[in-house]
Amino acid sequence: MGKRIVIALGGNALGNTLAEQMTAVKHTSKAIADLIEQGHEVIISHGNGPQVGMINHAMNELSREVESDFPIIPLSVCVAMSQSYIGYDLQNALREELLNRGIPKPCTSIITQVIVDPEDPAFQHPSKPIGRFMSREEAESLQKEKGYVMMEDAGRGWRRIVASPKPRDIVEIETIRALFNAGQVVIAGGGGGIPVIREGSHLRGMGAVIDKDFCSCLMAQQVDADVLIILTAVEKCAINFGKSNQQWLDHMSTEEARRYCAEGQFAPGSMLPKVEAAIKFAESAPGRRSLITLLEKAKDGIEGKTGTVIE
Amino acid sequence: MGKRIVIALGGNALGNTLAEQMTAVKHTSKAIADLIEQGHEVIISHGNGPQVGMINHAMNELSREVESDFPIIPLSVCVAMSQSYIGYDLQNALREELLNRGIPKPCTSIITQVIVDPEDPAFQHPSKPIGRFMSREEAESLQKEKGYVMMEDAGRGWRRIVASPKPRDIVEIETIRALFNAGQVVIAGGGGGIPVIREGSHLRGMGAVIDKDFCSCLMAQQVDADVLIILTAVEKCAINFGKSNQQWLDHMSTEEARRYCAEGQFAPGSMLPKVEAAIKFAESAPGRRSLITLLEKAKDGIEGKTGTVIE
Repeated sequence: MGKRIVIALGGNALGNTLAEQMTAVKHTSKAIADLIEQGHEVIISHGNGPQVGMINHAMNELSREVESDFPIIPLSVCVAMSQSYIGYDLQNALREELLNRGIPKPCTSIITQVIVDPEDPAFQHPSKPIGRFMSREEAESLQKEKGYVMMEDAGRGWRRIVASPKPRDIVEIETIRALFNAGQVVIAGGGGGIPVIREGSHLRGMGAVIDKDFCSCLMAQQVDADVLIILTAVEKCAINFGKSNQQWLDHMSTEEARRYCAEGQFAPGSMLPKVEAAIKFAESAPGRRSLITLLEKAKDGIEGKTGTVIE
Repeated sequence: MGKRIVIALGGNALGNTLAEQMTAVKHTSKAIADLIEQGHEVIISHGNGPQVGMINHAMNELSREVESDFPIIPLSVCVAMSQSYIGYDLQNALREELLNRGIPKPCTSIITQVIVDPEDPAFQHPSKPIGRFMSREEAESLQKEKGYVMMEDAGRGWRRIVASPKPRDIVEIETIRALFNAGQVVIAGGGGGIPVIREGSHLRGMGAVIDKDFCSCLMAQQVDADVLIILTAVEKCAINFGKSNQQWLDHMSTEEARRYCAEGQFAPGSMLPKVEAAIKFAESAPGRRSLITLLEKAKDGIEGKTGTVIE
């Protein structure tokens, strides 16, 4: 029976440059087309770290070096641009792979905004470095002029750091749902979505980044998906990772997963947010489960042959 | 009775910089919300000249000055980025204006690709200058390295010129139609769409730009719209423009419009393509009409009070 699946693509699904991206999305599309060919319906979300970094860098340079009166393009606008920079290639690679298999399905990228809470404690503790390295003087001047939070990064220079607040609501969810329910392939929530706060009827873009796994988890709930697949660089989660008693996990109950999280079994900023998002989705309603595995193993994973299932 | 309307926004609806854009889209949204409040369903397309120029410039500078090993981002990818750069602001301004009027309607931007014919004669006669001015030496080196067509522009330096082929098909039309038919507000075909050619199941992005009025005309036909509204800087078309016998036109039959075009009454690259697109839509099926007017007069125009109607 076909499942409704939200797939969160890891960084390795896209590559770092445009040339890498065009190769990577072909490979990625084969793995996703395998699922669609089996009769599943999919929504795809993806990260945007290197891509939004490149765009932000280019836009900053434009105002810094080239046209000094050209105002800086806010990070939120750079996230929007990264969604089409990636979505354009990804939707085409998927469309082509599906056509080659005789499955002519519309594949569309949706510019996606995600509501965050201005009171989110993350805004008090910015943690994500973005953009280029710079001198202390330049960092101090940006801090003064723009109110950016700047931080020295391991001797390599100063960088802007931004908050990573939790996603609360997806602005374009009705559109995503309409297309998903019509059997279309939807790419949405790119880079975790453009973070915005509600100010009455106005949405204000924020200089922040949302974790794409948390965004995918929320989207999967809001479209009533059956499965959330989080694709990453390992086939399964492990406990006691790298130790003599290392153990690969085929399955975790959400209680077990919570216990492992509390024990510090999963690396913060890496496997930990994935397992947290997986738990949250699995607990959000009866019958929902999450799967963490390799891109290449997505099909085997959904058939129960590999990966770590959280339910 | 509510009409199905495709609106082609002119350059003045968006401004030249991000600050201008944020102001312009508010103003633009009021005019569009007036139509929606009257019960009409709308799809919005828009130009992207200054925006794609800025993005293309920033991306070129990134590879030229900042990171010499960073490959140039193709123009087609810059068009994709301009669609989200503009769409993000436009969909938000519209959403906000509609909410303020008690009309909570989803407003979404669709990354839109448009099929062109590789045999289009326009490819033999590139005519649209894009991007920055440069020296003769640099122009010659780009011509050699990348195969770009370069041209000296009125003593101001050399620029790349690209073709402006006719749109043949809209790749994402099924998505646009699904959302339009569900009563959503759709922003699509931004900048005339990303020009692509079919190579079997593959779509290849082209270094070209499509006229947004021709793209809007095709989209209006493909979604079975009743009216194509082309918004511009004048309230009506005129014949004998600027002469003592100048005459503003309330109405043209398509035969009259064709005759005026043949007489050279409308400026090429300005009013002429608008009138040509208007004729083509009006002739495409019974009951269809086109309207050319000012943004601020769109509502009066649709009520038959002003503008030039072509039918």
